[in-house]
Amino acid sequence: MVHWVLDAAAGVTPASVTVVVGHAAEDVVASLPDGVHHAHQSERLGTGHAALIGLREVAWEPGDTVLVVYGDTPMLSGATLHALASRREASGAAGVVLAATAPDPGHYGRVIRHDDGTFARIVEWKDASDDELAVDEVNSGMYAFEAAFLAEALPALGTANAQGEYYLPDVCNAAAGRVVVESMPYEEMAGVNTHVELAAADAARRGMILRDHMLAGVRVDDPATTYVDATVHLAPGVHLRPGTHLRGATSVGAGSEVGPDTTIVDSTVGERCHVWYAVVRGADIGAGVEVGPYASLRPGTVMGEGSKAGTFVETKNSVLGVGSKVPHLSYLGDATLGERVNIGAGTITCNYDGVDKHRTEIGDDVFIGSDTMLIAPVSIGSRAVTGAGSAIAKDVGEGALAVERSDQREIPGYGDRLAKKKAAKRKAKEEAG
Amino acid sequence: MVHWVLDAAAGVTPASVTVVVGHAAEDVVASLPDGVHHAHQSERLGTGHAALIGLREVAWEPGDTVLVVYGDTPMLSGATLHALASRREASGAAGVVLAATAPDPGHYGRVIRHDDGTFARIVEWKDASDDELAVDEVNSGMYAFEAAFLAEALPALGTANAQGEYYLPDVCNAAAGRVVVESMPYEEMAGVNTHVELAAADAARRGMILRDHMLAGVRVDDPATTYVDATVHLAPGVHLRPGTHLRGATSVGAGSEVGPDTTIVDSTVGERCHVWYAVVRGADIGAGVEVGPYASLRPGTVMGEGSKAGTFVETKNSVLGVGSKVPHLSYLGDATLGERVNIGAGTITCNYDGVDKHRTEIGDDVFIGSDTMLIAPVSIGSRAVTGAGSAIAKDVGEGALAVERSDQREIPGYGDRLAKKKAAKRKAKEEAG
Amino acid sequence: MVHWVLDAAAGVTPASVTVVVGHAAEDVVASLPDGVHHAHQSERLGTGHAALIGLREVAWEPGDTVLVVYGDTPMLSGATLHALASRREASGAAGVVLAATAPDPGHYGRVIRHDDGTFARIVEWKDASDDELAVDEVNSGMYAFEAAFLAEALPALGTANAQGEYYLPDVCNAAAGRVVVESMPYEEMAGVNTHVELAAADAARRGMILRDHMLAGVRVDDPATTYVDATVHLAPGVHLRPGTHLRGATSVGAGSEVGPDTTIVDSTVGERCHVWYAVVRGADIGAGVEVGPYASLRPGTVMGEGSKAGTFVETKNSVLGVGSKVPHLSYLGDATLGERVNIGAGTITCNYDGVDKHRTEIGDDVFIGSDTMLIAPVSIGSRAVTGAGSAIAKDVGEGALAVERSDQREIPGYGDRLAKKKAAKRKAKEEAG
Repeated sequence: MVHWVLDAAAGVTPASVTVVVGHAAEDVVASLPDGVHHAHQSERLGTGHAALIGLREVAWEPGDTVLVVYGDTPMLSGATLHALASRREASGAAGVVLAATAPDPGHYGRVIRHDDGTFARIVEWKDASDDELAVDEVNSGMYAFEAAFLAEALPALGTANAQGEYYLPDVCNAAAGRVVVESMPYEEMAGVNTHVELAAADAARRGMILRDHMLAGVRVDDPATTYVDATVHLAPGVHLRPGTHLRGATSVGAGSEVGPDTTIVDSTVGERCHVWYAVVRGADIGAGVEVGPYASLRPGTVMGEGSKAGTFVETKNSVLGVGSKVPHLSYLGDATLGERVNIGAGTITCNYDGVDKHRTEIGDDVFIGSDTMLIAPVSIGSRAVTGAGSAIAKDVGEGALAVERSDQREIPGYGDRLAKKKAAKRKAKEEAG
Repeated sequence: MVHWVLDAAAGVTPASVTVVVGHAAEDVVASLPDGVHHAHQSERLGTGHAALIGLREVAWEPGDTVLVVYGDTPMLSGATLHALASRREASGAAGVVLAATAPDPGHYGRVIRHDDGTFARIVEWKDASDDELAVDEVNSGMYAFEAAFLAEALPALGTANAQGEYYLPDVCNAAAGRVVVESMPYEEMAGVNTHVELAAADAARRGMILRDHMLAGVRVDDPATTYVDATVHLAPGVHLRPGTHLRGATSVGAGSEVGPDTTIVDSTVGERCHVWYAVVRGADIGAGVEVGPYASLRPGTVMGEGSKAGTFVETKNSVLGVGSKVPHLSYLGDATLGERVNIGAGTITCNYDGVDKHRTEIGDDVFIGSDTMLIAPVSIGSRAVTGAGSAIAKDVGEGALAVERSDQREIPGYGDRLAKKKAAKRKAKEEAG
Repeated sequence: MVHWVLDAAAGVTPASVTVVVGHAAEDVVASLPDGVHHAHQSERLGTGHAALIGLREVAWEPGDTVLVVYGDTPMLSGATLHALASRREASGAAGVVLAATAPDPGHYGRVIRHDDGTFARIVEWKDASDDELAVDEVNSGMYAFEAAFLAEALPALGTANAQGEYYLPDVCNAAAGRVVVESMPYEEMAGVNTHVELAAADAARRGMILRDHMLAGVRVDDPATTYVDATVHLAPGVHLRPGTHLRGATSVGAGSEVGPDTTIVDSTVGERCHVWYAVVRGADIGAGVEVGPYASLRPGTVMGEGSKAGTFVETKNSVLGVGSKVPHLSYLGDATLGERVNIGAGTITCNYDGVDKHRTEIGDDVFIGSDTMLIAPVSIGSRAVTGAGSAIAKDVGEGALAVERSDQREIPGYGDRLAKKKAAKRKAKEEAG
């Protein structure tokens, strides 16, 4: 979930990002992207304490702006963070409190203003008077601070409050005259406490991402069943069908149709491609390529313009040249194909000898017959042909035919005898039953 | 999107349909069904001008009824068009204005009536008085006209209006005494301007199509994830599971279960079939057939009663006789199978020799062993058997066994040596790491 | 649909369950789980008559509690049935009427109470006075009875009512002083009359099931496209992706990720597994197993810890030992694999000889080369290896290599001649076209 907030934070191009995690947070730490720092808060001593721990990880200049946000607010937008940071810099304030108007303020802390509208203080609901409880402007718990101010104020925090914790509002209250309030949409404050809320927040977030793509010219048959990460780039004119999942560093070019029922992760798809009923990971797909139905492209797959990986085809760490086709029932691993190669159904690159992996090299205009076993390391010269059902363990010269096959023999009557045995068995079964 | 309106128009069985398109509309024209005419409007001179261009393409009799509708109103129903046409014919009016009551009339033209309720005029919102702006009956922009009246009125249109365009309401206003108003549901007026609106309209339309099927006895587990074109015929008792897409000229017989995660296009599915996790295009499937999970039937596939195309099976331009089974991992292209044929796993019809495609003929009660390569053109006689792993390039006689195989040899100790190499490599790696 | 009510009934662990069915109910009867009785009501003579027929099938003691419910109320919860039964037992009442407050009582029978709140009578809407029609407490038609009371009251029922039927409310009205009222949520009363209502009820029911799982710690990316039967057990920490269907007696262990686009029926999945783009039926999957993308596990599949069934892999009635891998394009039927076996792509167990099925036995640490046909019955000794493209019909000794292969031959120039033919054909086509 913290990734959603990191996405939002990326919207302000921060100099550095530090995530403060509690104990048992190995999974969170392991999942953080490169360049994001983390700090451990071994005891939960309050938000002020967490901010202090985080600040120690950051190399800051006195006039820098430090944003303090939560990791469990998936609806927080980059626009809101941008407004918060800009306000800090434009106002020169020591601190900016991010506040929202809540329809039902409940247990949120209230933001109390002076009559002239300037910031007076934040008061926890437990400590609030009836008049204060009637205020519907609430503290989001997110702030922007001048770095030098924060570094000086945090160590001075005490625990003389109802919670007995070091807590951040005290930093603002102690310097109220130098603090201003910035407003945000209440909806973006929503935290997530259960998997039910997480699913709802996820759906809302997906809807926002897809809405932006649709307004930019992407056609989405059914936004409710289309799952696109915030990190994905889609050209106008892309068409996404139901059950499509686009994840990670993925881009899709104009005029391409993806789905139904397709996952693409960390891959590039060119223009005018058709990728359907497929799983694509770590692949680089050129223009006008067809993938599927029922194909799995694994990392290291590079597909040249106009190439094809059809039905029941798996590729891994393999390059297909321009116009090369693998229509059906094949496994290509650690292979390099030239241009205009045709791979017959049932072909397998035997890349693993039980100890090491080896490569298969195939030249231009090669015609690999059905069910050819290419026992790597092996090289097939340009314009060569292999006979169906052959195990090819030796290199094949350019323009040659290679075949590994015995003579076809025929045993008359065998089929008739089998049919009789089958009939007898059926009869015995019927008599027994 | 224009297809949705064409579907609605089909509900009034029109004598002819002409679509007026602007420039850069090649895609629209290419996608029009047979029998639908089109006319190009090279300059956008207004709705009156578009109607004139369209009318020129139509062969009409003076008393015919001409319907004028938009191409971007996907919610328009056949029932509404039927009511519009019927009103024109029953009333004998020169024109019928299709109007709706709008909750928020905004920029729509208002339909102004006399005190007795008869049609007075259409007034654009820009030209409307405050009293007229308060009217919530709005012009849908869709009309029915007597052909002769329209043909006479359109060329007489001027451009002396706020828009400086030839526009259709002027035709009605000029003959107000001969025009009547027909009401329609406001919801059906909704136009589509963005991909966001298109997705919403599409969802609503899908819901209506499925609702009709469900009320007619089709079971749909999850209408939100089931995608059925208006052109599809479903018998009562069909059961559709989530992720099912039925497109084009497709029909499914009673008692058949389709899905999850299945696309069927332009195909016939008989009664009591089970088609799941499959892609089916241009296929003719008899009664009691099983397809999938993970099967792809391509155009020209004909499956006899009780036949089966199981898991990782692809067929193309092939006929399976009654009771014939292709359970797994096979490709059948350009093949004709008799009745009760059993195809072993891994079987491939090698139909392409690099230059031409050839057919494979298989008789009744044939047993094809696993991994048989049928090198076409080739013919297998009835009751014949092929040995596993054989490449069959010569015809096989009835009731015979055909096998292409060498002797199995054994090299003692090879596996043990391989295991040692593997262990040594692992050890070296550990020492290096 | 009756299964939903049976699920609810299971919540009160009844001594016996009898379903009363009308004519043409063979499908319902055939679908009933073991242990559920049924009784035929050949004539539809009313609810009292149906209860009588049902009671005859039940072996009861005088003081037992008999619940009477409908088969078409899918929203009915086990909690409500539990409250109904408990009320009967705690109160010692002869009968308990299950009632609800209806926002729009319409044609429901009204529950009329005395001023002190005790039960007075049930009145059908047709017979109700205006005052009675104003009552919004309605009869759900579901009851709990003391067995002896019901057995005595039912045969005494007459048909002297508006409907001319034997009907159950008369049993309550005749002994009003011994009847109490129990309240239920109105939502749970919803009956299902059309497939449209069935789909809506199904969606609501799915939502409730998933909500409970999510609150118990299961992560569900998209509850709207996740389909989990009430009979399924999920450990906290399971992660379900969109398009997942979990049916029947299925359980999934902690840390496992299932989906997208996966069906699992009557199977056990251990901890930390990854099952995606797969169909799994009747399988027993150990911890840390990978399945898919594009795998079909059929009944009798047992996968040991850390084993793998990858892409385009089908298994049936087969055991994979700890750490054994079947990465791609294979069919394993009636096979037993030891530990750490590696199965090359394209391997097939030829388990069917046209008459009988036979088993394949593979020892520990075996390396099966690609496209090996294992012609059963056959046994491969531990640490043995098979050569790619071999048909293995004879047993292989421990640590040996078995290979069935001819010499690879090369015919120079064949490929060049083929290329010329292809070019000539293309040229002829161009000249003709």
